[in-house]
Amino acid sequence: MVNVAILGFGVVGSGVAEVLFTNETHIDRKAGGPIRLKYILDVRDFPDSPFAGKVVHDFSVIENDPEVSIVVETIGGARAALDFTRRALAAGKSVVTSNKELVAEHGCELLKLAAEKGVSYLFEASVGGGIPIIRPLNQCLAANEIEEICGILNGTTNYILTRMIRAGLSFDAALKEAQANGYAEADPTADIEGHDACRKICILASLAFGRHIYPRQVPTEGIVAVTLADVAYADSCGKKIKLLGRAIRQDDGKVCAYVAPHLVDGGDPLAGVEDVFNAITVKGNAIGEVMFYGRGAGKLPTASAVVADVIDAARHRDEKKRVFWAEGGEDVTASSAGLESAWYVRAEGTAEGIRAAFPGCTLLARADAPEGEFALLTGSMTRSTLDARLAGLAVRSAFRVLD
Amino acid sequence: MVNVAILGFGVVGSGVAEVLFTNETHIDRKAGGPIRLKYILDVRDFPDSPFAGKVVHDFSVIENDPEVSIVVETIGGARAALDFTRRALAAGKSVVTSNKELVAEHGCELLKLAAEKGVSYLFEASVGGGIPIIRPLNQCLAANEIEEICGILNGTTNYILTRMIRAGLSFDAALKEAQANGYAEADPTADIEGHDACRKICILASLAFGRHIYPRQVPTEGIVAVTLADVAYADSCGKKIKLLGRAIRQDDGKVCAYVAPHLVDGGDPLAGVEDVFNAITVKGNAIGEVMFYGRGAGKLPTASAVVADVIDAARHRDEKKRVFWAEGGEDVTASSAGLESAWYVRAEGTAEGIRAAFPGCTLLARADAPEGEFALLTGSMTRSTLDARLAGLAVRSAFRVLD
Repeated sequence: MVNVAILGFGVVGSGVAEVLFTNETHIDRKAGGPIRLKYILDVRDFPDSPFAGKVVHDFSVIENDPEVSIVVETIGGARAALDFTRRALAAGKSVVTSNKELVAEHGCELLKLAAEKGVSYLFEASVGGGIPIIRPLNQCLAANEIEEICGILNGTTNYILTRMIRAGLSFDAALKEAQANGYAEADPTADIEGHDACRKICILASLAFGRHIYPRQVPTEGIVAVTLADVAYADSCGKKIKLLGRAIRQDDGKVCAYVAPHLVDGGDPLAGVEDVFNAITVKGNAIGEVMFYGRGAGKLPTASAVVADVIDAARHRDEKKRVFWAEGGEDVTASSAGLESAWYVRAEGTAEGIRAAFPGCTLLARADAPEGEFALLTGSMTRSTLDARLAGLAVRSAFRVLD
Repeated sequence: MVNVAILGFGVVGSGVAEVLFTNETHIDRKAGGPIRLKYILDVRDFPDSPFAGKVVHDFSVIENDPEVSIVVETIGGARAALDFTRRALAAGKSVVTSNKELVAEHGCELLKLAAEKGVSYLFEASVGGGIPIIRPLNQCLAANEIEEICGILNGTTNYILTRMIRAGLSFDAALKEAQANGYAEADPTADIEGHDACRKICILASLAFGRHIYPRQVPTEGIVAVTLADVAYADSCGKKIKLLGRAIRQDDGKVCAYVAPHLVDGGDPLAGVEDVFNAITVKGNAIGEVMFYGRGAGKLPTASAVVADVIDAARHRDEKKRVFWAEGGEDVTASSAGLESAWYVRAEGTAEGIRAAFPGCTLLARADAPEGEFALLTGSMTRSTLDARLAGLAVRSAFRVLD
């Protein structure tokens, strides 16, 4: 018998309780023995919940109960969640989480603590919701030197971009619709400014390349600046605008990681990823390119990933987990300034000015373009070369084109 | 130090040697210690290979060497491969394979033998080449009751269909091109008649549903009957023809598994899977739908999956593996005859005959259709209902439409 405590009974936490209850027989068979929910920690009570009798308000009840061997942390954030995770690991309990902020900021410390205590710190649910990506990256692709990870990592922004592309909604209108549908929060900053995608690419890159990459090391641009004009120009050349998190291994071993809108060719599998779906492509030196696709968020998909980790922790109670990465540092990352790519540029100016800056370029066209608006795709160049070319032009948008 | 022997030095076997050698440092770090290739078993010698010194011709050398703890079986087929796998497991060695025929026909017996001996029998490479699917299905989706698996499981047929759709080649011309490009074998029977896809859906279904499903229990139809006329009619309604392997859990717990061409809607992620790529979608009761995509064959992608299993076997030498399913039986599977779906039908006859059989139906159109050819999409019905309706018509093609 393995006893579990859930910290935080919000959307994901209550989903974990529901999956444990609904699929109990199946889960017990997979785990090789019964897994039982013993406590739910929350500041609130839930008198109408079937789990009301399990609610406690004091973490030390869980911390000091030797029967609890697995703690599910679905509080979110990096304050109480950090304190409770440290204390649970220190007390010799495995911790399973969906908390991307905590893993992105403190993963290295918490993995080290777990290893010292001979327990697990698992976070499959922190990236891609229910999509299996952490374990495949760590185990199935273990024979590969990973070369690049590239993904649509945030469902909210992908929904907004899809509605702009498909229905011609403005960014503001698409955001309001996403909020009305429950796909965006009242304060959508973390999604639309790219911070959520940034945390996720940090976790994937740390795992793939072996050293912690912190969000502050990853230049992050959201989708606030994407306009319907950009969507139309992208469409005119068979491309779609997608917010991508990327981590690319350089020849010197450093990792170039960033989050930004990109133009993606219509034939690329990522272009077909719509609405709130996520997809992550991984390139390895043996495997070539593989892609993982599914719902990147949602109560039950995310809970499903958490429970898979609970089963894993239950089966391997006495084994140190192999998920591990070393401390980071300024020597881990390379600036994206040195990364060459083609660029999509929209600017205002004169035809002569554009032709002088980009000799021989082919201009893009869209219906109802205002006088003096120009858009084009450049050849491959770094950001600084691009900026030098653009000097003197009034640049409205500049996004990389995915190779 | 873990010593490995490779049985069969063909495309995949030599790829395994190459990946072990090329990514040695990385693999040793992942495995927690050195993994070394000690023997290669083949009937041939390879005097020009850098691995020439490791070649042996007698399996008993490997069987009787206590230093060899992992055997990689890349012989293929179910004769020598079966004999050597049994003997290796009986000798207490873990076996890793890419041999889908052996797993589909004898997986249950070999998994049981491995469990008795406390070693592993692993076969990530048997389905989807390098795409991680076996381990995610077994571990990451462990919290789910799996409801359906559906996949493009054979790269050769997907290449042929892609060339028919994209370039308007006939089946025969597309097959010849595939052979010229090395995507189809001189004898393409196992691919084009669906047997390869059948073996793969058997492996996935056995794993997902817990009991062995044998190829003889899975009705299998290949792509030989697919014509350019069908491709054109599918295109006229925004669909593409794909060869799918499917396994669907019925309400009574039985599994309906079959392989057949389907019309897939253009908006379905499977429709965008082209050329030799494979993709597998899995539906679970918590996770919803996830998809795994990548190269389904090829030397290095397949070798990459084999080596990931070798690393796993090396790390868990003393642990019984959890991949397991029970013996099958006639009570495991349900006939696909009871499965309702919409159908695409192409027939010859009179407009009156078609309208009598399918009142109110909308006919599909294509350029250059001969007089008396009709095509349509039906409502949802079983095969026997369809056949009853079609009595008296000269049916040329009848394929299911994927929901």
